[in-house]
Order: sequence, then C-alpha cells, then structure tokens
Amino acid sequence: MRLATLRDGSRDGKLVVVDPSATQIASAANIALTMQGALDDWQRAEPLLRELSHAVAAGRADTRPLDIAELGPPLPRAYEWIDGSAFITHVVLVRKARGAAPPETLSTDPLIYQGGSGVLLGPRDPIVLDDEAYGLDFESEVVVILGDVERGAGTREAERAIRLLTLANDITLRNLVPSELAKGFGFFQSKPATAFAPFAVTPDELGGAFHEGRVHLPLETTLNGACVGKPNAGAMHFSFPDLIRHITKTRAYTAGTLLGSGTVSNEDETTGYSCIAERRARDTIAFGEPKTRFLKVGDRVRIEMHDATGRNVFGTIEQEVVAP
Amino acid sequence: MRLATLRDGSRDGKLVVVDPSATQIASAANIALTMQGALDDWQRAEPLLRELSHAVAAGRADTRPLDIAELGPPLPRAYEWIDGSAFITHVVLVRKARGAAPPETLSTDPLIYQGGSGVLLGPRDPIVLDDEAYGLDFESEVVVILGDVERGAGTREAERAIRLLTLANDITLRNLVPSELAKGFGFFQSKPATAFAPFAVTPDELGGAFHEGRVHLPLETTLNGACVGKPNAGAMHFSFPDLIRHITKTRAYTAGTLLGSGTVSNEDETTGYSCIAERRARDTIAFGEPKTRFLKVGDRVRIEMHDATGRNVFGTIEQEVVAP
Repeated sequence: MRLATLRDGSRDGKLVVVDPSATQIASAANIALTMQGALDDWQRAEPLLRELSHAVAAGRADTRPLDIAELGPPLPRAYEWIDGSAFITHVVLVRKARGAAPPETLSTDPLIYQGGSGVLLGPRDPIVLDDEAYGLDFESEVVVILGDVERGAGTREAERAIRLLTLANDITLRNLVPSELAKGFGFFQSKPATAFAPFAVTPDELGGAFHEGRVHLPLETTLNGACVGKPNAGAMHFSFPDLIRHITKTRAYTAGTLLGSGTVSNEDETTGYSCIAERRARDTIAFGEPKTRFLKVGDRVRIEMHDATGRNVFGTIEQEVVAP
Repeated sequence: MRLATLRDGSRDGKLVVVDPSATQIASAANIALTMQGALDDWQRAEPLLRELSHAVAAGRADTRPLDIAELGPPLPRAYEWIDGSAFITHVVLVRKARGAAPPETLSTDPLIYQGGSGVLLGPRDPIVLDDEAYGLDFESEVVVILGDVERGAGTREAERAIRLLTLANDITLRNLVPSELAKGFGFFQSKPATAFAPFAVTPDELGGAFHEGRVHLPLETTLNGACVGKPNAGAMHFSFPDLIRHITKTRAYTAGTLLGSGTVSNEDETTGYSCIAERRARDTIAFGEPKTRFLKVGDRVRIEMHDATGRNVFGTIEQEVVAP
C-alpha cells in the first residue's frame, strides 16, 4: 500500500491512502490521524490500512482527487533523520577529486550523520536559496521509515524494523561543508531541510525489487528537464539492515525514524549522477577542475523511481530553486 | 512555573504541573495531554498552565504526591536535540591536552552537533554500559526548549523562542569519539541517549539568574557522593540566543526543539568539572597523563542546580551506571 500526508493546516497533516493509479486518495482518519500515529501503533493500524487500501483499489471507498501539491512529506516532522553514505563509489570519487584517500574503514564502517528532522519539506516545496555562493546541491536518495528498534538489533530485527520506504532530496550547501567538517562536529548549516517524495510505501509495493535490504531499481534525477542520473539503488555497499545494525550499537530508536541510503551512485559513469558534487568530482578527475555548476534560482530538480512495469512508485519530488 | 512529564505507559507521557515545594503534582490533561502538545499550542496553553500552577501553589488544585522515579524526561522524544559547545574553556582544555590547537574560529563560530532525539532518558534512568572500554563519561549541561523558530532568526526572535529550561546529562562514550570524528561526519555511536532533569521551567522561575541569554548559577555535579564540579553556567561564551541565531542560518525549527549549552566549564580550575574528559585534559596538561578514570558499573552521577535561595530549580538527575 501507498500512504501519504495531506496538508490540512495542522502541524502533522492528515494520513491518507493512495489509490493504485495515484489519482485518488482516501482519508485514513478513522484508523490513524497522522502518519506518525499509524507508525506508533503499526500492529493495529497496518491491517486496517491495508483493508482500506484494498477498498480504495476496488472502488469501494470514499475518495477525492489527488493533487500532489497538497501533500506534505510523509512525516512533516520526524523524531530522527539519519543519513548514511552507503554507496562507497560516491565517497571514493568525492575524496579522490580533492586528493584525499578514502577512510581506511570505508568498506567495514558506514559513514553516517544525524540530520535535522523537525521541519521537513514536501515533494513540491521550493528550495529557498539565500546566496548562490553557498553551492546548492541536490542528493537523490532512498529512505526507509522504521518502527521501534531496540539497542543492539541483529540482522533479523533490523530487517523487520523497515515499515515503509520513500525517496529524499537531501539538499546540501556544498560550500558550507568544508569549514563545518573542519570543526569536527559534522554537518549543520550545510544541511538545510530535506525534501521527501509524496508517497511512503510498504516493501511489498516494490515486489521483487526490494531484496537483501536494498531497492534494486534505478533512481532517476532530472535537472531542468534533462535526465542527469539513473544509477541503480541496489548498488548500496551497506544494506539498510547493515545501517540499522550500525546505528543501534549504542542506542534505540522510536517509530518514525527516517534512515537514508546516502546519494545513490554507481561505478559506471554512464549511469549519471545523483548529486552535482559527484559530477564535479568526476570533472576534476578528468579535466583537473569542475565543469558543472551548482544550482541557481530558477533551476528545477525532479527525483523519481519507476519499477519494472513503469509505475512511478513513490511519486515525484519536483522542486524549484527560489530566492527568499 | 515548573512542568514535568509523568510516565503513564504511553509514548509521550502525561503533562503535569509541579508545586513550589516539588512534593506534589497536578495533572494538566485538561489543558494539554503532553509536553509536546503544550509547546505546539503554547499561546493558548501557557496562560492556562500558569493559572493551574497558581492554583496548585495555593492548594486549590487536585494534586498527588510527586515521586521523581515516575517522571520521564520533559520530552520523552523530541523532534531535535542540538548541542552546542558554548563554554570555550572546555574546548581549549580538551584540545590542548591532545596537543591540538583550538579551531581558529573558536570565539566567533559556535561548535554544535545534531544529537539523536527519538529516545531520551528520564532523570532516574540507569545508564546501560555494554563495555567499560568505551570510556563512559557524563556531561552536565543547561538546555533550553524552543518554540517555533523561523530561518534567519534575529536576536529578538531568538530570545523570544526560549520557552522552557532544563538540565541534561549528555552521556558520551569517549573512546568511540576519535574514530568517529576522524570519519568527518560527527558523533554517532559515541553519543547514546541523553538524560534530562525532572522539571522544565519557564525563564521567570530563574528570576534574576537568567539574563543575557545565560543562566548565572553554578551547575553541581556529584560523582559517587563527592561534588566534582560547581562551575557557573553564566560563563557561556555564546549565549543561547547566539546559538539559536547560528542554527537558524539555513533552516527553521519546530516547537519542542532541545538546544544544549555544551559541558559547563569555567577557566578557574577550582570550580571543578562537568565531564571527566575535561578533568583528564587538566591531568594531562599537569602530569603528562590522565589520572581520572571514566565511569564504571556501579558509579552514580548527580546533576542539579540550586538558585540563590537554595531551591533545587530543575530537580536532580541521578543515574547509576549498570551492566546490560
């Protein structure tokens, strides 16, 4: 089933079920008022939401037309937003371009950062850019939404903790990164609010494409109408359960925690890129300098993922860069 | 007024008002079910909570005895937990001990990190330590709880965003820090769940002690019955509004965001320490090596702050280190 959050003026929006054609939605208010509410009480809510989803598909439920512009992110505010960097091709390229060796533990110890989660962007929200000198970049990613997970989760608990999947644009201000990382405490001002796809879907919606804790489908990024990237998201070096085991080493997580894959990246350069920084790294390796500019006001970024049947699984993130 | 969260088996607990003697509590359920609920709707809730607080003080409200062990943290889960490092004495000492220069921008650009906020500890919750080799440490801090804050907040908006204050024990696994910081993405496994004081109080409860965005009172840390630190929290180099202006440069925050001062520290060594790492840094500077051990199973840490009249403003954090 596919779920979404309708903006209704409240802080956390209203949970809705999306019909198979993604043209109609049905209120889930009699099951759970919000996406967080459903995740908090998943054991009760899930079967009821599935029942409603079947009724919607069969035309047996009250629906109204879906307008993606009315949707917020699946969780307008989340208790945690944790982002991995599970595609090590990306890490190797970015570091190689700046003449740095990849971390020694690259293939055994996931890179991961804690992001801000109190204010998140919906699929059509503009990206407000104060200053083009910040070096605005997109990062197209796959995200899992977790149920409760205890400290010290094993692989089985980690696999079972994945409730829903979605996509994210982990917006980054590249030119604010170096001075922040030099201070040693990680990203902060360089990571403004992250944007999310319209739909959060249960793993079964991906059919055979979700296995070994990875989504084996290409993630498409379009910049000003031109496809710039279509790498396969199945190339994660660390799977989502691997990342979950890493983050649960010393603490537990509440339902609704968002966990990202990091920028999707393939070794094969012809698959394109999911962030400009990676394209600039390849430029630098090839030509000695970056040839690709960061985003400017007026640019438009689209991120989406189609399954083998051509269905747009999560709906499309489509954002325009705007001046304040 | 002083507010607290009573554990009642639900995820977010139940909002209660604490009487002036901190021996009785009154349910605030008819105003807001939870602390987050009150913060989400502060303009409506605050005057009603103050009214209830006056009624409690006057013996005109239904109350029940307060048992601190029944309290959770003011916010059992929060949308963000952001921790500054506003006492630059601490930064200078810790870096000096390891032969490193402080960051060049030490006095102009706050050090700050994004912490995990989905599972937080209450004032009496034990600290579960898997392995003493992790180097378990406490960090005694002052914390502000914010209302909604927009991007680009000015000093006035920042000052007005402070709704409540409390204390935290920002528990740290010191020996996991170096390899995480070397990876460049900040703390993660080295920061297990943070613990908070029993009460969240409005700024007026601090009377004259809260001015210029700082709490001008000593923060007392007791280890196994011996006072090890009583530095004045007013020595923050960056005030809370300074930190708020820093974090709002590129994004906005939702009500209920927790913002910490970082380990309270004074230049005067005789005021003691608010984390073992700082004591070990002073040891190293004086003797060439640390002489003070990290925490072990069975150790007890107490953190509290008394005002000029001797009142224990936030109640006491009192945690025992336990084996899993």
